[in-house]
Amino acid sequence: MSYTTLGWQIDDRVLTLTLNRPEQLNAFTVTMADELVDAYRRASADDAVGAIVVTGAGRAFCAGMDLSVGGNVFGLDETLDPSLEALRAGWDDPAIVAGVRDTGGRVSLAVYECAKPVIGAINGAAVGIGATMTLPMDIRLASDRARIGFVFGRIGVVPEACSTWFLPKLVGLQQALDWVYSADILTAEQALQGGLLKAVVPHEQLLAEAHALARRYIDRRSPVSIALMRQMLMRNPALPHPADAHAIESLAMLHTSRNDGREGVASFVGKRPPQFEGRVSDGMPAFYPWW
Amino acid sequence: MSYTTLGWQIDDRVLTLTLNRPEQLNAFTVTMADELVDAYRRASADDAVGAIVVTGAGRAFCAGMDLSVGGNVFGLDETLDPSLEALRAGWDDPAIVAGVRDTGGRVSLAVYECAKPVIGAINGAAVGIGATMTLPMDIRLASDRARIGFVFGRIGVVPEACSTWFLPKLVGLQQALDWVYSADILTAEQALQGGLLKAVVPHEQLLAEAHALARRYIDRRSPVSIALMRQMLMRNPALPHPADAHAIESLAMLHTSRNDGREGVASFVGKRPPQFEGRVSDGMPAFYPWW
Amino acid sequence: MSYTTLGWQIDDRVLTLTLNRPEQLNAFTVTMADELVDAYRRASADDAVGAIVVTGAGRAFCAGMDLSVGGNVFGLDETLDPSLEALRAGWDDPAIVAGVRDTGGRVSLAVYECAKPVIGAINGAAVGIGATMTLPMDIRLASDRARIGFVFGRIGVVPEACSTWFLPKLVGLQQALDWVYSADILTAEQALQGGLLKAVVPHEQLLAEAHALARRYIDRRSPVSIALMRQMLMRNPALPHPADAHAIESLAMLHTSRNDGREGVASFVGKRPPQFEGRVSDGMPAFYPWW
Repeated sequence: MSYTTLGWQIDDRVLTLTLNRPEQLNAFTVTMADELVDAYRRASADDAVGAIVVTGAGRAFCAGMDLSVGGNVFGLDETLDPSLEALRAGWDDPAIVAGVRDTGGRVSLAVYECAKPVIGAINGAAVGIGATMTLPMDIRLASDRARIGFVFGRIGVVPEACSTWFLPKLVGLQQALDWVYSADILTAEQALQGGLLKAVVPHEQLLAEAHALARRYIDRRSPVSIALMRQMLMRNPALPHPADAHAIESLAMLHTSRNDGREGVASFVGKRPPQFEGRVSDGMPAFYPWW
Repeated sequence: MSYTTLGWQIDDRVLTLTLNRPEQLNAFTVTMADELVDAYRRASADDAVGAIVVTGAGRAFCAGMDLSVGGNVFGLDETLDPSLEALRAGWDDPAIVAGVRDTGGRVSLAVYECAKPVIGAINGAAVGIGATMTLPMDIRLASDRARIGFVFGRIGVVPEACSTWFLPKLVGLQQALDWVYSADILTAEQALQGGLLKAVVPHEQLLAEAHALARRYIDRRSPVSIALMRQMLMRNPALPHPADAHAIESLAMLHTSRNDGREGVASFVGKRPPQFEGRVSDGMPAFYPWW
Repeated sequence: MSYTTLGWQIDDRVLTLTLNRPEQLNAFTVTMADELVDAYRRASADDAVGAIVVTGAGRAFCAGMDLSVGGNVFGLDETLDPSLEALRAGWDDPAIVAGVRDTGGRVSLAVYECAKPVIGAINGAAVGIGATMTLPMDIRLASDRARIGFVFGRIGVVPEACSTWFLPKLVGLQQALDWVYSADILTAEQALQGGLLKAVVPHEQLLAEAHALARRYIDRRSPVSIALMRQMLMRNPALPHPADAHAIESLAMLHTSRNDGREGVASFVGKRPPQFEGRVSDGMPAFYPWW
């Protein structure tokens, strides 16, 4: 991969994606946004990737938008001022994508769409977009040196990267409002208590723990099963009625039960490890994607 | 009741529904699914039932699908392969119901529709459908011997029984993804810490605690009030706007305030126990069901 | 302000709204409902108000509906019996507003619509509508003397004030159902453990803590940013897809980045306090309100 702001390293089906501007504390730029979108899409489609670990080079995870760039520091085109209807109508128009649509949001949607589990390994400061980019990930682990801040209010702007959709679901509305209004820099322990993190681990063990978790999630698993499970758990709770989930689950169960699930049952009954053959590149059911 | 896989026992308005294939660790079959759907519907309509406690005979709650049956172990018809639209169009078609729609999902929807509180008393292993069938219940209590596992990934299939709708709402998305990806067998204590259970109780006291809770929920209560409260709390959070809940609450309050609520207020002011007369069989308001 | 049931006191942009019928333990009446709706709307529009603290005069917060009034104690018109469709069609019809629409729900919707953070300072008993009126608030603090009860089932009615929408989102469905079925009077500590409260504080310090929190939320903040953040965090999680939040966040970021956000970034880079100039009365973006 030829990214200028990211490292891309695959070890035994675990991709480590590294925010790689350590001199700038991995501050977020439009280039980084575009490269992250590309990297998540590539990893989602690549059968060589089973799961993704995201971390930062050096002592920060991501210190937020790079405020040293000139003009609109968020990369937006201040000559545009569309209505909500005009934005929706021009959703994929390059001028709208580049000049109106929040860069962090484009990254978050790429994470949301991903067919592979995404584990955040927050190794240091994660502030602004550095914090919100972790919300659509499946799991967040943090080093005991991590510091996390939803600091948008301090500079008179608003939370982004789809965080107003994800954060209240992850930590509850009361906690989300408090963190956003106060704009506090949270310790890892505070973020854990608030429900944002799965665990806080000693700094030196963070990457090893993240990789071990990725292994537990993908070893002896069907990639097709994982991709279906991820999208079902991400999307179905937002559907109006459990019968909507029932419809999707039914087709997913019907498909898997006559493919990798047949091997899964046979291996379970036979008390041997399964040999799954389904692949995301060509083994997803006809109804996928269903959205 | 003449069920072959279930026990049905009413004591003073508390129905105990017992998964009753103890030699097979109450493993789930298509027959058990059909009987559970029937039993929940019957209990929902029967004024002799105020609340339902669900438990397992012997040492397991439910060890999952019975993998010893031949053919498609999930009871699905592998000759069918409908699109999502075709599934929706044929929703109640007997061939679709029997051959495509997930058996666990049919049970979960029957729990969701029920007019009475449902308390799970998880007395031992609750694995696969044994775990997911408890999610649409109102309350989950577990014995300290209970073990709970969302193990679908181990056999290459996917979570079902509407669990992709319920589980993230109950325990949060991060916890739900971790439990499903890892497919770990959780101890009762782990499930409690994760927010799945209301309480863990000593094994010998489990059924007594479940019955005591059922009593607290229904004694000196209006069955009409309970049925309305259950459906409102289950359904309204999925509506787009609090004003949608406001509309339903308004009609429910208007109805109850001139029926059992009148007696409720009079008894409260008079410092005497209420004598509610409303029944689910003939006392529900005209707008019920509103969905 | 000339309210008969409320106190209205502004100190340095923090409005303290006091339920003020201390001889009746601040029992809720139709007049109090109408005055609360008016007060929240007024505070939302008034640039002199940055945040709102709600508390009760005397030893109670609000002891519930005033059951001593004659006729329908909930203020409803028992001669009306509309269908759900008729209610929606007549939503703003004065006869429907006064005779059918739940009084507590009208108050909760006014809190939901408010452009300013609302902090509940629960100083004593908060029962029935006294409990449910706090749910659409941003934050709930309670005195160690507070007692909170969702007691509707005891008198044969149902939860209201949009609580069937808010409560399961705030404390989870299992906890919500248990509190509503049991109708228990919770101690402040129990409500804290259940996730309803942000904190329990010594009784004498409650108002000071609530005011200090309000200060932390609004000092050196843009009122436009706060209003946008509040409505986005309240509303966006109920949208079907994170892309729906992405659209709104994009326009909010575009607007703030060329208004108060420009000053915010400059002050941050310049290491000086920001001087925000945007006001809710005339500085909200063209797409607001977007609903």
